[in-house]
Amino acid sequence: MAMSRLVCVGDYEQYAEHNLPNAVRQYFNSGANYEQTYADNVAAFKRYRFRPRYMRDMSERNLTTSLLGHDVTSPIGVSPMSMCRLAHPDGEVALAKACESEGSCFCLSMAATSSVEEVGQAAPGCTRWFQVHVLKDRDMMRRMVQRAQRAGFTALVLTVDCAVHGKRYKDLRNQFSLPPHLKLSNFEEELKRAKSVVATGQSKEEWGRFVNQAFSPAHTWQDIQWLKSVSHLPVVAKGVVTAWDALEAVQHGADAVWVSNHGGRELDCLPATIDALTEVCQAVGDKTEVYLDGGVRSGLDILKALSRGARAVYCGRPALWGLAKDGEAGTSDVLQILKEELSVGMALAGVKDVQHVPTELVVHQSFYSAL
Amino acid sequence: MAMSRLVCVGDYEQYAEHNLPNAVRQYFNSGANYEQTYADNVAAFKRYRFRPRYMRDMSERNLTTSLLGHDVTSPIGVSPMSMCRLAHPDGEVALAKACESEGSCFCLSMAATSSVEEVGQAAPGCTRWFQVHVLKDRDMMRRMVQRAQRAGFTALVLTVDCAVHGKRYKDLRNQFSLPPHLKLSNFEEELKRAKSVVATGQSKEEWGRFVNQAFSPAHTWQDIQWLKSVSHLPVVAKGVVTAWDALEAVQHGADAVWVSNHGGRELDCLPATIDALTEVCQAVGDKTEVYLDGGVRSGLDILKALSRGARAVYCGRPALWGLAKDGEAGTSDVLQILKEELSVGMALAGVKDVQHVPTELVVHQSFYSAL
Amino acid sequence: MAMSRLVCVGDYEQYAEHNLPNAVRQYFNSGANYEQTYADNVAAFKRYRFRPRYMRDMSERNLTTSLLGHDVTSPIGVSPMSMCRLAHPDGEVALAKACESEGSCFCLSMAATSSVEEVGQAAPGCTRWFQVHVLKDRDMMRRMVQRAQRAGFTALVLTVDCAVHGKRYKDLRNQFSLPPHLKLSNFEEELKRAKSVVATGQSKEEWGRFVNQAFSPAHTWQDIQWLKSVSHLPVVAKGVVTAWDALEAVQHGADAVWVSNHGGRELDCLPATIDALTEVCQAVGDKTEVYLDGGVRSGLDILKALSRGARAVYCGRPALWGLAKDGEAGTSDVLQILKEELSVGMALAGVKDVQHVPTELVVHQSFYSAL
Amino acid sequence: MAMSRLVCVGDYEQYAEHNLPNAVRQYFNSGANYEQTYADNVAAFKRYRFRPRYMRDMSERNLTTSLLGHDVTSPIGVSPMSMCRLAHPDGEVALAKACESEGSCFCLSMAATSSVEEVGQAAPGCTRWFQVHVLKDRDMMRRMVQRAQRAGFTALVLTVDCAVHGKRYKDLRNQFSLPPHLKLSNFEEELKRAKSVVATGQSKEEWGRFVNQAFSPAHTWQDIQWLKSVSHLPVVAKGVVTAWDALEAVQHGADAVWVSNHGGRELDCLPATIDALTEVCQAVGDKTEVYLDGGVRSGLDILKALSRGARAVYCGRPALWGLAKDGEAGTSDVLQILKEELSVGMALAGVKDVQHVPTELVVHQSFYSAL
Ligand SMILES: Cc1cc2nc3c(=O)[nH]c(=O)nc-3n(C[C@H](O)[C@H](O)[C@H](O)COP(=O)(O)O)c2cc1C
Ligand SMILES: Cc1cc2nc3c(=O)[nH]c(=O)nc-3n(C[C@H](O)[C@H](O)[C@H](O)COP(=O)(O)O)c2cc1C
Ligand SMILES: Cc1cc2nc3c(=O)[nH]c(=O)nc-3n(C[C@H](O)[C@H](O)[C@H](O)COP(=O)(O)O)c2cc1C
Ligand SMILES: Cc1cc2nc3c(=O)[nH]c(=O)nc-3n(C[C@H](O)[C@H](O)[C@H](O)COP(=O)(O)O)c2cc1C
Repeated sequence: MAMSRLVCVGDYEQYAEHNLPNAVRQYFNSGANYEQTYADNVAAFKRYRFRPRYMRDMSERNLTTSLLGHDVTSPIGVSPMSMCRLAHPDGEVALAKACESEGSCFCLSMAATSSVEEVGQAAPGCTRWFQVHVLKDRDMMRRMVQRAQRAGFTALVLTVDCAVHGKRYKDLRNQFSLPPHLKLSNFEEELKRAKSVVATGQSKEEWGRFVNQAFSPAHTWQDIQWLKSVSHLPVVAKGVVTAWDALEAVQHGADAVWVSNHGGRELDCLPATIDALTEVCQAVGDKTEVYLDGGVRSGLDILKALSRGARAVYCGRPALWGLAKDGEAGTSDVLQILKEELSVGMALAGVKDVQHVPTELVVHQSFYSAL
Repeated sequence: MAMSRLVCVGDYEQYAEHNLPNAVRQYFNSGANYEQTYADNVAAFKRYRFRPRYMRDMSERNLTTSLLGHDVTSPIGVSPMSMCRLAHPDGEVALAKACESEGSCFCLSMAATSSVEEVGQAAPGCTRWFQVHVLKDRDMMRRMVQRAQRAGFTALVLTVDCAVHGKRYKDLRNQFSLPPHLKLSNFEEELKRAKSVVATGQSKEEWGRFVNQAFSPAHTWQDIQWLKSVSHLPVVAKGVVTAWDALEAVQHGADAVWVSNHGGRELDCLPATIDALTEVCQAVGDKTEVYLDGGVRSGLDILKALSRGARAVYCGRPALWGLAKDGEAGTSDVLQILKEELSVGMALAGVKDVQHVPTELVVHQSFYSAL
Repeated sequence: MAMSRLVCVGDYEQYAEHNLPNAVRQYFNSGANYEQTYADNVAAFKRYRFRPRYMRDMSERNLTTSLLGHDVTSPIGVSPMSMCRLAHPDGEVALAKACESEGSCFCLSMAATSSVEEVGQAAPGCTRWFQVHVLKDRDMMRRMVQRAQRAGFTALVLTVDCAVHGKRYKDLRNQFSLPPHLKLSNFEEELKRAKSVVATGQSKEEWGRFVNQAFSPAHTWQDIQWLKSVSHLPVVAKGVVTAWDALEAVQHGADAVWVSNHGGRELDCLPATIDALTEVCQAVGDKTEVYLDGGVRSGLDILKALSRGARAVYCGRPALWGLAKDGEAGTSDVLQILKEELSVGMALAGVKDVQHVPTELVVHQSFYSAL
Repeated sequence: MAMSRLVCVGDYEQYAEHNLPNAVRQYFNSGANYEQTYADNVAAFKRYRFRPRYMRDMSERNLTTSLLGHDVTSPIGVSPMSMCRLAHPDGEVALAKACESEGSCFCLSMAATSSVEEVGQAAPGCTRWFQVHVLKDRDMMRRMVQRAQRAGFTALVLTVDCAVHGKRYKDLRNQFSLPPHLKLSNFEEELKRAKSVVATGQSKEEWGRFVNQAFSPAHTWQDIQWLKSVSHLPVVAKGVVTAWDALEAVQHGADAVWVSNHGGRELDCLPATIDALTEVCQAVGDKTEVYLDGGVRSGLDILKALSRGARAVYCGRPALWGLAKDGEAGTSDVLQILKEELSVGMALAGVKDVQHVPTELVVHQSFYSAL
């Protein structure tokens, strides 16, 4: 498919849909079970309407903000995603470099195909966070966290929404696994150092199983304290979709809350993230930073999330689609498009500063069905 | 159609859609009239959202429960269905054996193509219930109930939702009837014993008419008492969709209530079962066991039903689709998939025990449209 | 298209869609403007759900009722439709004969291609009503009413919903007009008798214009009184969709109110008839008979309308589709199908008598979206 | 595509879809971003239902009204649109002449391809308004306003909804720009007169950029006062979708408020115009004239807008589609169709005068979902 000009995230999605190998495409662009949440994340944004304030001097808009005290020039970060080298040989390193140049925060997945060290070295100016799962082996987990801290990662993002792995039918049908030429770099480095049990020559399939079994379903909110005891980094709870858990997270020491449903990849039938955002912000948003990812496909989606209480917005697949198209340059272009669309949206809606997007800017469509 | 790998109920449905003879497929996969309820049973589950509790120790989950005092290791049973040998030569016997190996309760239809004796003998370890319609001939009805009791069936399931037969357009177009090589075994045995009026050599068409005419539209709630007078088995009222009838059933002696709309096959335009479940549980659920069938297509649907008050969930067509693919092994696989999905769903949602699924776990989607 | 077996109204619709000449098909099966109401009439029925009462003795059901004091054995009548000979050479005469044999009330259109005399003679045992528009020429109108009375028509149905003709885009595109071999019989007879201005040899197009111009947009509710002054027949106001107009009609002497939106053919964007029925019945239903037509496609739709307060239900296009297929026999079959489906629906829903269908039997789907 | 007979706006849309060059078609028939508002403008009208009053004498209907004191014989105007000569060589001049003959108000865009002088001369009898954006160069803006006043334009329409340009993906993909043979006439004349900086021989692309950059994002509500200080013309605020801005506009001196979302071309995800109309009329409608454009595709849409409080309705694309088909004659035909449909709709709904369309005539569809 020849696409001369990719002007929006949708174009990048189309590109990826038509150009990635089948199993990779399905690994990226799918959700758990019948993919209700995967679809609803995108659909839900369309259920909200803008109520702009016109005729204000919009010559200047501010997109700069701070995340846990670190300045970023864009409120649009990149979500942690495993195995990004499937999309492009440069993988997470390219994502980090794109974030560096666009002023975005980059969150590296524990299950990445690039290590914290590689990323730290390649994009030293990038605000970078490290996403962790609770591991059965606490020593390994501590070492990995401390390596991230040494590599200049400034926050830990604890994923709370996958005690076990969700059922992704497409991956099951494809018997999807990491291809032999790639490695889960954070684990591999860890194992090399620790001279661990895993013998050389182990096949990739065994690897996959090993890593999967490494994750502990016995995680609890106390693990936030544990993370704080092994590093001095702030901890973000990623995957919160209810007020209940937002409060739990904060009461157990979380420094920020990340509204996410894992892009619809774990528990299906969760609320769409923009739907869940409101109650989370009402519960903890006055004192705690709240972020959102899931279904963001345009700068206007971002503006909606900011209005409903998010301090920043992350995107997963859009960054991957850019990566698939052109490596770092592709992701940069996607991040630029989103930033530009956000900026235009702010100008059109009468919003001058991403740090002050009024709640009244956005209403649910049901606002307009009253008799 | 080559399908290398069937990983979910939807895959089995596809298989059946493409591989069953037309008239059989339409007999199984259709509903009454314009099939509104048949479709809505499935669609309705999608209208509910999970509100999980994360970061609890999910190392262990319990799926064991009891039904009317009988222990089962799975809360997922198989609904009574007529003429299952149309799907596979082993018919209901294979279903029962699959239930036996998966720890599921099996409910045999009065209009089955295997008799209570055959099923009892083939799957002696299976928790098995016998579904009955009120018959015009009370003697025949009493004998059949008593045979079931002797054959180790431990509950009677009285179907309350079809005083007469619904209008199934596809069956009418196909002039569907039981093919000559199959028999409605419970009736045939009964007739043999009773040396009844039906002469040998009677054609299958006459048979069908005979059995149809055997059902009595003059049934009333008093028939629960009558059933209890002819056997000592507990009685489940199957087909309840309102609080009114749930109360009637219980007041007339029903030991449990089974929310069902007969898979959309009798009265069309009934509420979807998951929609009807709430009011039934509110009316009688504190004292009486409530089950649900209709539209269950994944383990997450089951989790939703348990959260809204069902003690167990049954499925009809999914078991049939498994049967059509591979006999006992196919149904076992379907039951396993559902159990595994339920277990994963519980782990992801923070639920440890099928006997304690909190009501707050699930909300209707309208929860998220408030302004 | 070969259709071996037509088992429901939908099958007859398919037959007509595939077998009628284009312009005729579009004249029958279309609505005004973008056909919102035409489609919504059918869709709206699907928004209502049954809440049946099970386990009552359903051996007998009564479908007999009375309309303005006349007994009918079916509560399903045929709506007035112009130009029915377009569907079949026997036209309105065949419709009336089908109604006679099915025990239905037949309402002849003033713009029919069969005269009151022809219909009266062909189906003397049929309960028959005559539909009128207010004409500019009051003499002609009086004569026509009195002819109807003489021909055994027992009620006048005054159509209130088309002061002028609606915009039917398909007819406009087709420049649709009555073909030369057909005539608007009631007018033709009238003109012959009255030795009117219209000269012999006048073309059909001129005829069409003449009849169109004959209708008076200056009609008012007082015309009910006028109708009563020229005959002793009761008057039904057809086309009511609001409580306001129901009250107006009754206050001005209407003996019954017929909820209709003219099958979506005049003012588009009217409420669906089943949606409008409730407020009309609440306003006048305790003292006045209320009927409904529009979008009825199954016996279950009829049961819903009866539950929401209609005493009888009429159908337009379904009768026409039957006529198109097989003349009188086709319409008979359609009426039989509907009656049988209604009877089965009653048995399944626990309703014994069409004169006593409880209001609680039916709820809007929104009943099931409460949290 | 041969279309013998265009009978409604939808037919003209089809014509344009099939006959305009790709880039032009996409420039006209598209919206910003994912085009949610562009689609919703049309869809929203379908969410409203008529509650007519029947049986009133509808022999006469009045469609005459006044806009800011000027009489018009049609309440259906033509919205300001840039670059109409793309649709037909006669461009805005043809639109104005069509409006003149149909008694409609014509609003010329500042970015038109015909100048105020050309339009004034060609259609001297047409009620004509001039749409303005706030320009960085206030001198140029003043001169243009004063030229319009001299050319017989009787109101200024200040567009408030585009501080910057929206993101139109299709135009971005097409790298759409004004073709070399066309000019933005109001600016060109202005520049010629003012002997401005722009040198002769400048390319059209430079032109486009120049004009784009001419618009000032530093506009404020005070600009209404400024406009009033440089001419004696009344000022209409176009693009209002909230009660807030309606009040702002009026408080800052606006003589009328025009509910519009720019046809979905600037900020996407705005409410549909018919949805936004109600709150605007409630806020200012008792003292101030309110108009609406966006999504009007039939006379019934117009009737709905009048009922919900609009004094007049404008249409953009429908007029363009007519222009594309046949120049002035095409637009005349579209305006006639709409007027005729409005008139028929009024007759059918019991409305005699466009100046008195009762609010109760129209309800949101949710009116009919109460239990
Ligand atoms: C291919 C892929 C891999 C992912 N891997 C992880 C992961 O390792 N850890 C994690 O917390 N989230 C992971 N996610 C979820 C993302 O962090 C994020 O929540 C989600 O992608 C946001 O939705 P979006 O893709 O619609 O923007 C992954 C998502 C994708 C698409
Ligand atoms: C082929 C078929 C035959 C059935 N026969 C019976 C029956 O004999 N008695 C009965 O109570 N229900 C019968 N049912 C209804 C099922 O017990 C059950 O309520 C329904 O299938 C549940 O919906 P599901 O198929 O979506 O799971 C039948 C269903 C099917 C599909
Ligand atoms: C072809 C056709 C002609 C009609 N002619 C008349 C008529 O002359 N007078 C009248 O009151 N209604 C007329 N109607 C409306 C019907 O009486 C009735 O209200 C409508 O068809 C009911 O909707 P249904 O077709 O969905 O059952 C006509 C309807 C159709 C389809
Ligand atoms: C091709 C095109 C050009 C437009 N140019 C302008 C413009 O220059 N100024 C303006 O205020 N609105 C402009 N609009 C918006 C229209 O004035 C109007 O608000 C919109 O077209 C109404 O929606 P409709 O096309 O659905 O009727 C333009 C619209 C279109 C379709």
